[in-house]
Amino acid sequence: MAAVVDLGAALRELVETSVLTTVDAGELVATAAAARALTARLAAATRPVHQLPALDDLQAFRRVYNPVTGPGSAFAPPLEIRREGGDVVAEVTLGGAYEGPPGYLHGGMSSLLMDQLLGAAAHATGLFAMTARLELDYRAPVPLQTPLVLRGRFDEAAGRRTVTSGGIARADDPHRALVQARAVFVTPRSAQREAYLGRIVDATGRQATPVQPTDATAGRGSGSAPA
Amino acid sequence: MAAVVDLGAALRELVETSVLTTVDAGELVATAAAARALTARLAAATRPVHQLPALDDLQAFRRVYNPVTGPGSAFAPPLEIRREGGDVVAEVTLGGAYEGPPGYLHGGMSSLLMDQLLGAAAHATGLFAMTARLELDYRAPVPLQTPLVLRGRFDEAAGRRTVTSGGIARADDPHRALVQARAVFVTPRSAQREAYLGRIVDATGRQATPVQPTDATAGRGSGSAPA
Repeated sequence: MAAVVDLGAALRELVETSVLTTVDAGELVATAAAARALTARLAAATRPVHQLPALDDLQAFRRVYNPVTGPGSAFAPPLEIRREGGDVVAEVTLGGAYEGPPGYLHGGMSSLLMDQLLGAAAHATGLFAMTARLELDYRAPVPLQTPLVLRGRFDEAAGRRTVTSGGIARADDPHRALVQARAVFVTPRSAQREAYLGRIVDATGRQATPVQPTDATAGRGSGSAPA
Repeated sequence: MAAVVDLGAALRELVETSVLTTVDAGELVATAAAARALTARLAAATRPVHQLPALDDLQAFRRVYNPVTGPGSAFAPPLEIRREGGDVVAEVTLGGAYEGPPGYLHGGMSSLLMDQLLGAAAHATGLFAMTARLELDYRAPVPLQTPLVLRGRFDEAAGRRTVTSGGIARADDPHRALVQARAVFVTPRSAQREAYLGRIVDATGRQATPVQPTDATAGRGSGSAPA
């Protein structure tokens, strides 16, 4: 795991620097060639996408390459989601790689982060669930290179549906939401889950379709999960 | 531009391979060290985040590091958005780096892509506008490593608000939306735009706050824009 985390961190810094660099074209091309050599090295052995990474554990909601929370993902800030009372909370500072309007977070990046956070609020009940609806209201632009706080909470559950909501604020003004979000998650029926995830195998080749309690109020898992 | 595109493509392949690799920990650590050497090389000269990259042109909606459409962004697939009649359309195939549930696109990635596409449908009217509301309905999971088609259309405009909608489907089943989305974009008032973007300068240090027609029906720009 330490090596996966190390490479994730190194690639994250490389990607961030690649959008802010002003070195000349020759340097960019030389860096690209060196990056391709690294790709070839990593490509010496790979898994198919339907086989889970060896470090993943679906039952514990551990996904090391999740593009929001995965420490091994160069895309992920990564968001470290923790429980705080009944809420899920994460602090993060985002760089130029996440930019939409000049100097601000891409609106779709806000939705990506909130989908994960609101999913974590739903999964805090121990469920494997998938996003069914996501709504975002953008009150003000979210600044880059500024400490942010993201918060999500469980609102209600009925049958296979779980509703959560939350928002993004500046850490120095945490009660003024820049973005507000609400999501509905649905736990797939057994047959759907099988249809969607029946091909998934773990690193040893064994079937690894996630199982979970069928009652939305049962179980307590950890906060970070697939969404 | 060719060098920026080359590095973007090389880093995109490196990130994708980094989530699928099964090489041993020693190889991962060695790759991380080599990646850090590349970061140091690119970090020899950088811009602050409020200074636009030299290749960007806000008036032409050209953002080379946009995390959805930017050819220089390792995060971006990149989505190539084109006009087709009154619609905006993009075809894309996404890999393991974009995964949420095992084998499927992260729900938040669907929202990231659709925010950009629906923004392009709004910006096709020539406006600089920012996302005010985004709604997504997830009908079925979106498969990875599968050709997809994303489509967006202009619905209506009133004053500073523009509404667009669209969806994501498999390219081989383009009329069955897996994800449906709707967005409201707002053109900031002049004072807001100044407050939000007044610090932005171009690569030569000149102020580069975007300007645009104030009438939502005026002007015709290109399809890809900040969102």
